[in-house]
Amino acid sequence: MEPELPKQWLGPRRLTMTVESYETRDGGRWRFVHRGAEGDEFRFHGVFHGDPSPAWTVRTFEYEGAPGHVSLETLSIEERDGRSYLRNVNVYLSAEDRDAMVESGMEQGVREGMERLEELLTRFNAESPAP
Amino acid sequence: MEPELPKQWLGPRRLTMTVESYETRDGGRWRFVHRGAEGDEFRFHGVFHGDPSPAWTVRTFEYEGAPGHVSLETLSIEERDGRSYLRNVNVYLSAEDRDAMVESGMEQGVREGMERLEELLTRFNAESPAP
Repeated sequence: MEPELPKQWLGPRRLTMTVESYETRDGGRWRFVHRGAEGDEFRFHGVFHGDPSPAWTVRTFEYEGAPGHVSLETLSIEERDGRSYLRNVNVYLSAEDRDAMVESGMEQGVREGMERLEELLTRFNAESPAP
Repeated sequence: MEPELPKQWLGPRRLTMTVESYETRDGGRWRFVHRGAEGDEFRFHGVFHGDPSPAWTVRTFEYEGAPGHVSLETLSIEERDGRSYLRNVNVYLSAEDRDAMVESGMEQGVREGMERLEELLTRFNAESPAP
């Protein structure tokens, strides 16, 4: 992964994002840090299971603010009718863990990230339009 | 982990078990192979998330006969009233994956493994009784 790209879209606008590691191989580790202007930090890490690819990635996910509450996540991108569909499935070790994630405000950050990704892709397409 | 010990108890009696890897560290991989007398093989693998210990281990789990159906597993051993309690939680990416595991016959193999572990510990205790 090109570590400069996620910074431009991943997560909420108010936080600056850093990819500390993203080792896309079986057992490879990933770690993201999102920092606010007031020095507030949100750190996430996990490991990859299997051979990660855009078509199918399996990884574990842990918010370091809630250690031990690990979840399993799959990411897959599918091309359909000229569009790319990203599917992201997360499963939790307990219903409490799942509910805590829903209530954490992560959803807003993910939505904002998706908006930013769309803006980034629109800029890319404007710079080098498809033939 | 001492790789000779799991062979003596892990899984059903009719299968011979081999620990191909068991790297107990963040991102470390594990792989078990269970072989029957007729050459039938059942392979399982995954990666460790975090710092595995007897008190708390998180790992991914995939049966190689059903690739892509990955689950997340925690193992913890707790001492209570002079006994050791093993807790094993598995969560699946879909209800179908969970049901397939329930129907796979794995439960019988796990039960048999627990019986064998008890027999092994009884032998150990007979050889070196607690003071």
